[in-house]
Amino acid sequence: MPRRPALIALDWGTSNLRASLLGAEGGVLETRSAASGVMALPGGDPGRFAAALMALAGDWIETHRCPLIASGMIGSRQGWREAPYVECPAGLAAVAARLVRVEHAAGTVLHIVPGLSCIGADGQDDVMRGEETQLFGAADQEEPSVTRVVAGRCFILPGTHSKWAWLGEGGSVCSFQTFMTGELYAVLRQHSILGRLMPPGGEGVPSRDAGAFAEGVRLGLAEHASATHLLFTVRTAGLAGRVAPEALPELLSGMLIGIEIGGATRAAAPPAVVLLGEPALCARYEAALDVAGIAHRRAAGDATTRGQWLVARAAGLVEEAGA
Amino acid sequence: MPRRPALIALDWGTSNLRASLLGAEGGVLETRSAASGVMALPGGDPGRFAAALMALAGDWIETHRCPLIASGMIGSRQGWREAPYVECPAGLAAVAARLVRVEHAAGTVLHIVPGLSCIGADGQDDVMRGEETQLFGAADQEEPSVTRVVAGRCFILPGTHSKWAWLGEGGSVCSFQTFMTGELYAVLRQHSILGRLMPPGGEGVPSRDAGAFAEGVRLGLAEHASATHLLFTVRTAGLAGRVAPEALPELLSGMLIGIEIGGATRAAAPPAVVLLGEPALCARYEAALDVAGIAHRRAAGDATTRGQWLVARAAGLVEEAGA
Repeated sequence: MPRRPALIALDWGTSNLRASLLGAEGGVLETRSAASGVMALPGGDPGRFAAALMALAGDWIETHRCPLIASGMIGSRQGWREAPYVECPAGLAAVAARLVRVEHAAGTVLHIVPGLSCIGADGQDDVMRGEETQLFGAADQEEPSVTRVVAGRCFILPGTHSKWAWLGEGGSVCSFQTFMTGELYAVLRQHSILGRLMPPGGEGVPSRDAGAFAEGVRLGLAEHASATHLLFTVRTAGLAGRVAPEALPELLSGMLIGIEIGGATRAAAPPAVVLLGEPALCARYEAALDVAGIAHRRAAGDATTRGQWLVARAAGLVEEAGA
Repeated sequence: MPRRPALIALDWGTSNLRASLLGAEGGVLETRSAASGVMALPGGDPGRFAAALMALAGDWIETHRCPLIASGMIGSRQGWREAPYVECPAGLAAVAARLVRVEHAAGTVLHIVPGLSCIGADGQDDVMRGEETQLFGAADQEEPSVTRVVAGRCFILPGTHSKWAWLGEGGSVCSFQTFMTGELYAVLRQHSILGRLMPPGGEGVPSRDAGAFAEGVRLGLAEHASATHLLFTVRTAGLAGRVAPEALPELLSGMLIGIEIGGATRAAAPPAVVLLGEPALCARYEAALDVAGIAHRRAAGDATTRGQWLVARAAGLVEEAGA
C-alpha cells in the first residue's frame, strides 16, 4: 500500500502553517495551508496552536493516526513549546535525537524539530529555526555525483534574514551566518530618508533596472567594510539625478546583497553556492552572484518536506525507505 | 560703537531656525529660535520662508538693516532657494564666492551659504549642507599652536547622518564621508526585529550600560566588514539572555558607532580627531574613540555662528576684524 499515509509534516512558521500528508516513501500525498503562523495566532492560550492544527488537519490526524512532525517558529519561545537549539556542527542524527514531544489531545504526539545555534568566527551567537530542516532536505536531494562533494558546500537561503550555511561530511551543518539584508531593505525603504526619493510601491519586482541593481552589487562587494557610509550614497545618487527614482530601490537592493556577499566571503569565497528559497528572490541573488563571479545553482524544490521526512526517519518515527 | 549690530546669522535646518544678531567683531549680541525648520513649514508657497523669518527676526531686520546670512537646509531644493553644492576641496573663499542672494521683501538681501559635495574614494558622491559652516568656524577656533597642524586634521560631526571631514591647508575641506549611524539606530530600534527585545523609551540616554556599549564598539570595529550580519547578533545576544533587554540599545548604539569608526579609518586611522556636535552624543563618540585608541577633543562651542561670520567676512558683507 504505497499510498498509505505515514507522516503528517508541518512547516509552521511566523506567518503560515503548511501541512503535508506524506506516504510511506516520503512522497507528498496532499498539502494544505492556512494563515495560522505563530505570530498570526493571538497570544496567551496554548490551546490556540492545537485549535489551529485541528482546523487545518484534524481529519488527517483522526483518520490516519500517523506521527506528526513540525519545523519552524512553532518551536520558538513564542511557539507551542520551545525546542532548545542544537549546537553546530549538527547533522540529522543530532537533531532527530532532540525532537521535543508535545502530547496532542487527539492521542497523537507532535514532534517539534529544534533549531540550530552556532558561535561564529566573531564570537557571537547565531541561530536558525526551520532552515536546518530545509538544509537537510536540500543536501539529500543533490545528485549523487554532487553529494560526494557536498562537504564544504555553501548554501544560501535568501530572505528577511538571509542565511549562509556551510555543510560538512554527511550533510551536517558546520556553521552558518545570518544577514539582515531583507529586513534592512524593508525598513530603509519604508522608514528612512533613502525611501523618500523612491516612488511608492513596486517592492519585490525583481531587477526592473538590471543596471542599477548590478551597480549596487558592485559597490556593496567593493565597499562592504564601510556599509553604513555606502548606504547614504543611495541618497546622493538620487539627489544628483545620477540614478532615476524608480531605479533607486534596485540600487539599494543590489547594494545590500553585495554587502552580504562581500561580508560572507571576505575570509574565503566558495567556488559555488546552492540557492534555496523563493524563486524571484533566488533570481536576484543569482544576478548578484554573477557580478561576484561565484557559481550557483538552485536546490531542488520541496526541500522542507524532504527534510522533515529525513528527520522523522532518523528519529524512528517512520520506517527506513527500502528497509 | 562695538555693540552695533553688523550681521544677522541664520542657522536654518530641517527642524529649527536659529537667529543670532552679531556685533562688529562677530560677537553674539542676541539669539532667538523657532521651530520653523525647512521640513516644519508647510510646502508650496515660497512666502512661508519670508514669513517665518519676519516672525522671528523682523524687528532686527527693520531696525538694523544689516546683512543676513543663512546656512543649512534652507539652501536645499526643499528650502527657500537652492544653493548648488561647491565641490571639494573648498575653503572659505570658494564658498563665499558662491553665496546665493535672495532679495528679501524688507529691502535687505539674504545670502545663503552653499553646501559642499565630494567624490569619495569609492567613486560615489557625498554631500553636506550646514556642516561646512560649522567646520570653518571650528577650524578657526583652534588654538594658534593647533591651527598650524590643522592640515590633515579630522573632524567628526556625530548625528543622524554622521560626517567625517578631513581638513587641509588654511582650513579648507579636502574630503568627507557621511555615515547613516544615527538614522540606522532609530529605524532599527523602532521598526526592526532588533527593537522587539528592547524595552520602550530610554533612547538618547548615553551609556547607561557602559559595558554593553563598549562591547558593541569592539564588535563594530572588528567586524564592520560584515555589518549586516553583525547587526543580527544584537538579536541573538538578547535571545540567549547574554545581554539584558535594557542594555541591548547600548549594544546596538556602540556597534553602529564602531562600524562607523571601523569603516572611516580602514585605510588609515587619524592620530586624533576633533568632535563637533551635541554634548551627549559627543560623549558617546568619546567613549567609542577610547575603545578604538584614537585621541579626541571637542571643538569650541558656537562653531556655526563663528563660521557664518567668517563666510560673511570673506564675502565682504562685513568688515574685516581690525581692518
